[in-house]
Amino acid sequence: MRELIVDLKDRSYPIYIGAELLQQKSLLTHHIHSKQVLVVSNDVVAPLYLEQVTQALTDYTVKHVIIPDGEQNKTLQQVNRVFDSLLENKYSRNATLIALGGGVVGDMGGFAAACYQRGIAYIQIPTTLLAQVDSSVGGKTAVNHPLGKNMIGAFYQPQCVIADTTVLNTLPDRELSAGIAEVIKYGLIRDPEFLDWLQTNMHSLLTREAEALAYAIERSCINKAEIVSEDERESGIRAILNLGHTFGHAIETGMGYGTYLHGEAVAIGTCQAADLSCRLGMLPASDMLKINELFRQARLPVTPPEMSADKYIDLMSVDKKNVDGNIRVILLEALGKAALPQSVDTQVLTQTLTEYNG
Amino acid sequence: MRELIVDLKDRSYPIYIGAELLQQKSLLTHHIHSKQVLVVSNDVVAPLYLEQVTQALTDYTVKHVIIPDGEQNKTLQQVNRVFDSLLENKYSRNATLIALGGGVVGDMGGFAAACYQRGIAYIQIPTTLLAQVDSSVGGKTAVNHPLGKNMIGAFYQPQCVIADTTVLNTLPDRELSAGIAEVIKYGLIRDPEFLDWLQTNMHSLLTREAEALAYAIERSCINKAEIVSEDERESGIRAILNLGHTFGHAIETGMGYGTYLHGEAVAIGTCQAADLSCRLGMLPASDMLKINELFRQARLPVTPPEMSADKYIDLMSVDKKNVDGNIRVILLEALGKAALPQSVDTQVLTQTLTEYNG
Repeated sequence: MRELIVDLKDRSYPIYIGAELLQQKSLLTHHIHSKQVLVVSNDVVAPLYLEQVTQALTDYTVKHVIIPDGEQNKTLQQVNRVFDSLLENKYSRNATLIALGGGVVGDMGGFAAACYQRGIAYIQIPTTLLAQVDSSVGGKTAVNHPLGKNMIGAFYQPQCVIADTTVLNTLPDRELSAGIAEVIKYGLIRDPEFLDWLQTNMHSLLTREAEALAYAIERSCINKAEIVSEDERESGIRAILNLGHTFGHAIETGMGYGTYLHGEAVAIGTCQAADLSCRLGMLPASDMLKINELFRQARLPVTPPEMSADKYIDLMSVDKKNVDGNIRVILLEALGKAALPQSVDTQVLTQTLTEYNG
Repeated sequence: MRELIVDLKDRSYPIYIGAELLQQKSLLTHHIHSKQVLVVSNDVVAPLYLEQVTQALTDYTVKHVIIPDGEQNKTLQQVNRVFDSLLENKYSRNATLIALGGGVVGDMGGFAAACYQRGIAYIQIPTTLLAQVDSSVGGKTAVNHPLGKNMIGAFYQPQCVIADTTVLNTLPDRELSAGIAEVIKYGLIRDPEFLDWLQTNMHSLLTREAEALAYAIERSCINKAEIVSEDERESGIRAILNLGHTFGHAIETGMGYGTYLHGEAVAIGTCQAADLSCRLGMLPASDMLKINELFRQARLPVTPPEMSADKYIDLMSVDKKNVDGNIRVILLEALGKAALPQSVDTQVLTQTLTEYNG
């Protein structure tokens, strides 16, 4: 088992990475400090793993809330269902919430934990590669609003994260690839060596070799943890984690949550960001082609859906990185080096939005 | 003008206390760092003071959300209206939310600010005495849930608080008294000198003498600020601020939000806590009578409404101070000295709930 500490002073916590971790009861119970436990999961993951988690907690009162699968359910309404359950069961401020599922369950479960009685303990058991490499580090919790993704949320750190590579065996291929999109992102923004490793080892990830997965998860989490330790509340460098996300969120919102997986939208969005970086003279065209090729290798889409530039710009104008209504984007200076968010000329942005097509 | 700094390291902020402060534009503008401002107020306060605030902000884009007056509107639904407005107006993470109103507006406005894009700046302009002495210090934001008061919320600090004593001139008598309930609380839990001052000067407060009000507000805020600086997230001493609140919240929830003002419920609840302290041999009966008398002087209710002990206990069992389902209460050791929360024998608690009647 690999163990990585996310260093955030009094809010530091460990990430456990390895095979068969759900069987190790003590990983879980070590971090629970009252009898009251609520598991939040979804209707795809719960049938597979809820019983395993419940069996690790025989000495506890374990209740659960199961939400429907999918980004379209990351809503305040579903969070309210969690509050209902916590209150109906008279759970106190010492209760623990376990988020068992992908990013949607982690984000909304974490947000529910952040808000219930102004904050109760929570543990993340991410069951998708995307959640293991992304939402497991950084304490970003949130739900969507009809007018924007992740617009309602909190910075809130878990007690621990259990990233069990064995659970990835039940993950659909499409979701595995979507997770790899965020893995590639870490290479692109700050880790050229890892990018090389990914080019060489993509096949091992796609065939779910346990060691390759554990390495990619750890390296991704280390990269993210270093950034987050430096800038917990995203006032500076942390923004580079959003490479491809300004475009990607617009695609997700514009096409309707659930049409594209988050990682798929990020793959396309990263290609758009790379295209924009080229047009602005920051990145050579050959690097942009390498990026496209790597996403294709990972079986990810690189061609944007049909959506007007006006709609893109409208949707991008509510992004959290913006200042006073100016659209700001993360661009690439090189393979393995992202720039801080910057306002971009609407004309060049429009060129990318209308001319880049994979 | 009195200025008091609430010392919370990088989250420290000033409270300005005095007459005619809303006329001093710079108090407000000094703390606003982008053009986007949203004022949240209610339908009683907005007609009186919204224009005054808007006029102080002629160089800004000022939008507003007006919620219906009353505790029964401190809901997630109303918070969602604030999110709708922020998103419809494409407000960014640099926007500022101003909460102009009493505790309900402050609590739900603050919670909306805490959650929008994971936290935007907010400024409190409390327009009731209760809000000026209570929610202005401590960063507790929250909304109610049908099953419990303040069950959904966040710890979130404002940029500044502007406590203008002039706005108290339009406050109904009943609400003034409700505010004095919390003022008395500060004396009871840790400030015997202030308690003496209150016994002597109650009439000046009830007749709204500006200097007496400013002194009482400042002294209350100093007491609260000292406690909060010591224990921002309520893991220890801060709990004594909840004197009377475990009973009080049960009364508010049990009788339906809006039947009793919060301060009225706290006045009754504090008398119940004092009665319980007597029964447990911690407080002499003579002190309990003095407490009753002081609340009566402030024109506050001291007689509990008709509600069964079972219902009280049921409602008290979801209080945030509880641990693993055990009811914990703040008791008094003397006039001017509260004890940390402690589990109480259900039999004695039931005696207080059935036998104490003012």
